[in-house]
Amino acid sequence: MKKFINKILIATLLVLFLACGDKTANVSDEAGASVQPIETYNWKMTTTWPPNFPVLGEVANKYAEWVEDMSDGQLKIKVYGGGELVPSLEAFDAVSNGTVEMGSGAAYYWAGKTPAAQFFAAVPFGMNSQQVTSWLESGGGMELWRKTYAKFNLIPYMGGNTGVQMGGWFNKEINSVNDFKGLKMRMPGIAGKVLEKAGGTAVLVAGGEIYTSLERGVIDATEWIGPYHDHKMGFHKIAKYYYTPGWHEPGTQLEFFVNKDKHDALPKHLQAVLDAASKRAQVWVLSEFDNQNGIFLDKLKGEGVEIREFSKETLDVLRGYTKTAVQEMVGNDPLSKEVYESYSAYQTRVSKWSKLTEQAYYNKIQK
Amino acid sequence: MKKFINKILIATLLVLFLACGDKTANVSDEAGASVQPIETYNWKMTTTWPPNFPVLGEVANKYAEWVEDMSDGQLKIKVYGGGELVPSLEAFDAVSNGTVEMGSGAAYYWAGKTPAAQFFAAVPFGMNSQQVTSWLESGGGMELWRKTYAKFNLIPYMGGNTGVQMGGWFNKEINSVNDFKGLKMRMPGIAGKVLEKAGGTAVLVAGGEIYTSLERGVIDATEWIGPYHDHKMGFHKIAKYYYTPGWHEPGTQLEFFVNKDKHDALPKHLQAVLDAASKRAQVWVLSEFDNQNGIFLDKLKGEGVEIREFSKETLDVLRGYTKTAVQEMVGNDPLSKEVYESYSAYQTRVSKWSKLTEQAYYNKIQK
Repeated sequence: MKKFINKILIATLLVLFLACGDKTANVSDEAGASVQPIETYNWKMTTTWPPNFPVLGEVANKYAEWVEDMSDGQLKIKVYGGGELVPSLEAFDAVSNGTVEMGSGAAYYWAGKTPAAQFFAAVPFGMNSQQVTSWLESGGGMELWRKTYAKFNLIPYMGGNTGVQMGGWFNKEINSVNDFKGLKMRMPGIAGKVLEKAGGTAVLVAGGEIYTSLERGVIDATEWIGPYHDHKMGFHKIAKYYYTPGWHEPGTQLEFFVNKDKHDALPKHLQAVLDAASKRAQVWVLSEFDNQNGIFLDKLKGEGVEIREFSKETLDVLRGYTKTAVQEMVGNDPLSKEVYESYSAYQTRVSKWSKLTEQAYYNKIQK
Repeated sequence: MKKFINKILIATLLVLFLACGDKTANVSDEAGASVQPIETYNWKMTTTWPPNFPVLGEVANKYAEWVEDMSDGQLKIKVYGGGELVPSLEAFDAVSNGTVEMGSGAAYYWAGKTPAAQFFAAVPFGMNSQQVTSWLESGGGMELWRKTYAKFNLIPYMGGNTGVQMGGWFNKEINSVNDFKGLKMRMPGIAGKVLEKAGGTAVLVAGGEIYTSLERGVIDATEWIGPYHDHKMGFHKIAKYYYTPGWHEPGTQLEFFVNKDKHDALPKHLQAVLDAASKRAQVWVLSEFDNQNGIFLDKLKGEGVEIREFSKETLDVLRGYTKTAVQEMVGNDPLSKEVYESYSAYQTRVSKWSKLTEQAYYNKIQK
C-alpha cells in the first residue's frame, strides 16, 4: 500500500515539474499548506592559499563542511586551492564576475583594486583581533566593508583572524630603527612603505620563494606569520633571530567573499547559513592559531631559536612612519578616508577600555 | 490545470500521512528520490537573566532568531527571561529533566551540582576570553565541558564571553591586600573564598538587591560586570572608586545548554545549526561588550567616577590565595581535577605565546 501511494505521489510530482517547467516549483493549495521540492546549489570556492594550507586553507574546507551540514546538503561548496581553478590573486576578479561563486583570502590582497580594502585585513599599529572583531561586528566596520566591496558585486564575510603575528626573521639584531637601514626585507603592503621610510628596501617575494631568497641573500630578513607556519617554512634553519611583536600585522583579519548575484539567488535561510559559518570560522581560526602557535613556539625554542623583542623606542619611530604612510594612502581616496576615520575613531575608544582590562590582565593577572 | 494538479498532490500527501500515521513520513521511491514533508520544532529557552537583559539577554533573543533564520523556520525557539517560565537558578534542572528544551547562563551557577562547572565560566586569575575560547575550541576544553554536563543529560555550547570584567566599586581606596580586611563585599564563587582568605566577608546578594545593600551599608563594596551594565545599575552614584582589573572574572564564558534527548531527536542539520549559532554568539557578545563598555567608560568618567588600578602586589597576594582555594576545591572531586589539569596546562602554554604577542601588542604597539 505504502509503495503504491509513493508511486502516485512521485508521478504527481513529476507531472507537476513538467507542467511548471521550473525546478523550484512551489506546490501549494489555497490555504497555504506547501511542499517545496528542495533546490540544491553546487558552488565553488577559490582560495588564495595553497590547497589545505594549515589553518587558512583548512578553514575554507571546514566552512564548506559547516555549510553543507547546516543546509542538510542543500548548499554544497567545493573548495579549490590557489591555482587549482584560478591563480590565487585572481580570486577577487573571478568571484566578482561570477566565474566562481565565492573566495577566501585577506582584503589587503585587493589594495590595488580599492585601497580601502587594507583596513579590513591588517593595518600596521592598528587594532588587534579582539578589537577589530568588535569594530566589524558592533562598531560599523562590517557595513563599511560591504560598502567597499559592493562596487565589485561582492559581499564580504569574516573568515577568521590570525591574532598578533610575529615580527619576522633576522640574521642581525635590531636594536634601534637604524638597524633597518639598508635591510632588504620581504614586507608587503603599507608596512613595506614604512620599512622604506626607515631606510630599508621592501622586496616582494611570493611565499614559495622566501626560503630560497633568504638562504641565498636575495633578502636579508622576512616576515611570515607565526611559529606554526614559520616552523613549516624552515626559517629557523637559516635565520638566527625571531622578532616580536608583529607591528605590521597586529591582528590580520581574513575573509570570505561571495558573488552578490549568486548570494541574492539563494533562499534567505542559506544566506543566513553563510553568515553563521563565517562567525564559526572567526572563532575557530584564532583558537587554532593560538593553540598551534603555543605548541610550535615551544618547539622552536627547543630547536635553539633566539626570540627577541623590538624595543618600544624602535616601535615608536615605526609608528610615526606608519601614520605618514597611511595619511598618504588615505589622502587620495575618499572611501579610504571614510573607512580610516571609522577605524581610527573606534581604535581610540576601544583602546582606552582595553588598557584598563585586557592590558591590565596581561600585565598583572596573567602569571 | 496547475491548481487541479496541486489538489491531487495535496490529497495524495494527506492520504500518505494517514497511511503512515507518522508526521515525519519520508516518501521515497525505489531509486531514492525523496520528498520529505518538513517537521517543525517549537522549543523554549529559559535564561538566567532578566528578560532582554543587555547583551546577555539580548544574545538569547538573537540566538533564537539566528536559528529560525538558518533553519527556515524549522526550529523556532521562544525565549523566556529568568522567572518567566522557571526561576533563574532552576534553569539547569528544568533543561536537564526536559521540562524546557534549552537554557542560557554561565556555568559557575551550577557549581553546587558539579564543582567542575566553574572552570567553564570564570576562574580567578584564569584565562582571558581569547585564551579560554582557544582552550574550548582547539585545546580539548569543550570535550571536557561536554563530559561534565553529560551526567545531567545536557549538551553545553559557547554563549559568548564578557572579556575582562571590572574589579568592583569601593568607597575606600584599596592600596594593599590589607584593605580587604573587614570588608563586606558582594563576591560570588571561588573569588568569595579568596576574599575571605584576605580577611574580608563575601556576602551573597542577588543582582536586584545590590544597589540598596550598598547604599544602606549592608555591604561596603560590590563587583558586577563592566561600565555598560554597572552604569545602568547606578553604582557610580553611591560608590567613589571603580577598580580594575577584575581578577575574579578575567574572561567570563557564557553558555547555552540543551537537553540531550531533545537534541538527539533533531535532524542532524538542525544540530549543526545550534552549534553554529553558538559560535555566532561567541563573536557577537564580546564585540558588543567591548563596544558598549568603551562608550560607557567615557560616560562614567564624564560623570566623575574615579578609576583605580589594583597594584601588582595586591594581585600577587590574591593570586596566592586563589591557588589555595582552587586546590581545596579540586582536591575533593576527580572530575574537577581532570578539568583543572587541562585548564591550567593550557593556560601555562598559551600564556607564553600571549606574552610575546598580545601582551607586547598592548604594551608597545597600541598607542
